[in-house]
Amino acid sequence: MDLPVYADVVKAHEIVQKYAHRTPVLSSSGINKMVGAELYFKCENFQKVGAFKFRGACNAVFSLSEAEAAHGVGTHSSGNHAAALALAASMRGIAAHIVMPINAPDIKKKAVAGYGANITFCKPTQEARESTLAAIIAETGATEIHPYNNFNVIAGQGTAAKELIEDKGEFDVILAPVGGGGLLSGTVIATKHLLPVCRVVAAEPAGADDAYRSFQTKTRVPSVEPKTIADGLLTSLGERNFAIILDKVDDIVTVSEENIVAAMRLIWERMKIIIEPSSAVPLAAILEKKVDVQNKKVGIILSGGNLDLGNLPF
Amino acid sequence: MDLPVYADVVKAHEIVQKYAHRTPVLSSSGINKMVGAELYFKCENFQKVGAFKFRGACNAVFSLSEAEAAHGVGTHSSGNHAAALALAASMRGIAAHIVMPINAPDIKKKAVAGYGANITFCKPTQEARESTLAAIIAETGATEIHPYNNFNVIAGQGTAAKELIEDKGEFDVILAPVGGGGLLSGTVIATKHLLPVCRVVAAEPAGADDAYRSFQTKTRVPSVEPKTIADGLLTSLGERNFAIILDKVDDIVTVSEENIVAAMRLIWERMKIIIEPSSAVPLAAILEKKVDVQNKKVGIILSGGNLDLGNLPF
Repeated sequence: MDLPVYADVVKAHEIVQKYAHRTPVLSSSGINKMVGAELYFKCENFQKVGAFKFRGACNAVFSLSEAEAAHGVGTHSSGNHAAALALAASMRGIAAHIVMPINAPDIKKKAVAGYGANITFCKPTQEARESTLAAIIAETGATEIHPYNNFNVIAGQGTAAKELIEDKGEFDVILAPVGGGGLLSGTVIATKHLLPVCRVVAAEPAGADDAYRSFQTKTRVPSVEPKTIADGLLTSLGERNFAIILDKVDDIVTVSEENIVAAMRLIWERMKIIIEPSSAVPLAAILEKKVDVQNKKVGIILSGGNLDLGNLPF
Repeated sequence: MDLPVYADVVKAHEIVQKYAHRTPVLSSSGINKMVGAELYFKCENFQKVGAFKFRGACNAVFSLSEAEAAHGVGTHSSGNHAAALALAASMRGIAAHIVMPINAPDIKKKAVAGYGANITFCKPTQEARESTLAAIIAETGATEIHPYNNFNVIAGQGTAAKELIEDKGEFDVILAPVGGGGLLSGTVIATKHLLPVCRVVAAEPAGADDAYRSFQTKTRVPSVEPKTIADGLLTSLGERNFAIILDKVDDIVTVSEENIVAAMRLIWERMKIIIEPSSAVPLAAILEKKVDVQNKKVGIILSGGNLDLGNLPF
């Protein structure tokens, strides 16, 4: 199994920094006082398409050879990865074939269509998604770009932590949410190379705790009927992602739905920025005291800011 | 009547930049494409206490002589000015006497108390607010700091436009919301000095259009039973503010409630930042085509980000 290392993150960054925003790192003296630590939030909610996903998609698309690129790229996704891949493909001027479940929210369908992707709708099952995509790939010769279990995607996601450390120096702990593990695996590769003694801790909703259980048992277990407001974290860990996480991550902790909402609201109210529930999971872990941050300098990757404003939990 | 000029804004900035955030200026390529202009948003929602008001309060508090300061400052306010004055006073280590109507929202009472102010509650009438404050000032010798009809407050508010122009260069138009006129009068003083040919246009809710009517009739008319979601813009124009506005502002336009909410939602969704309804009024004017911005470079002061997340209009 080919796994990226820090040199791949550096190579990815050469590509990503041409197309993505170097997002700001924000702090809140109010939140710092409340938790007794110095927190630095890397704002991927301000990234293109509103999520860190653009980094990985961008690296994957621009790492293709000319011959590969000519056939386009494909994926099945109803979320941020679809929009990210569509935008990256349009930037390179190649086709993006996106398979979406027919019941995906209209706003997501529109966003992906707005980036000029070819959308194929399918039944809302994993099997239908995979078989529909396989047929399209067989027909077009497009390269499949998996949302997280992909070498170049992982290396691309690692560029957020690289920028965070370049901008703010040393950290005692860096926290990221974990769903499929793309962001976490990229983050830990970058962090452990640049700051070998910095702890990397992942936070996961208790209602979708497959990464926690996989980490505890050292065996990748699937996410079965996950239930959480953090809709970016429903998926099971990827194979490559799990290998990297098991090797390098210091700890994975779980948090309650109540604290995800409380942490999200705290960031909205104090920092005046919009984050999606998945982004609030690391701060929720701090509020629950699942991570020791007392008097420490802590980096937190805010994964994105896409959510339905008409359906808020407060 | 003593009115500040640009030199007073420069003097204010020497004070303000020591205590306030130099807030970022953000853009959205999506919104730019939608409106056919290049918009730059000065993010006072990220300012201390969550609003531009901290600039004016800070300048007023730190412009006092030692002898004056020893007696503290006072104001009546249920909004951002109270919090701003309380924080500025605490930074100087002097007393802030804040008169608040007894029906002010709990969250605002707590915020002001949290900055260490002496709060006196009164009946929710203008008369009670004024007489209560007068009694406190007679007793303590505190200096009254009016929220907008105050020389140093106006000069302080002008520092936001000064920073915007320093950071982003020339503009064709700069837009600000108008309530009491503190932000608008400061903005126009700074802008017309630095960029004499730049237009300065104010936007006001149609449901609280006293500034529009005052500007049209060249006579200051009061705000009578104003009704708007933009709760920072309910007040009548101050005397000093009106004199400056009549002399220097190019135009005042009004917008509908519907477009204020649409503009607010657009900024939340596209820029992932939280602004209060008052901040959305200038973009609402662009959406209504009340201001000609086609192919122009436009600065917009986002006044603040304080609102009740439990009571959103969408």
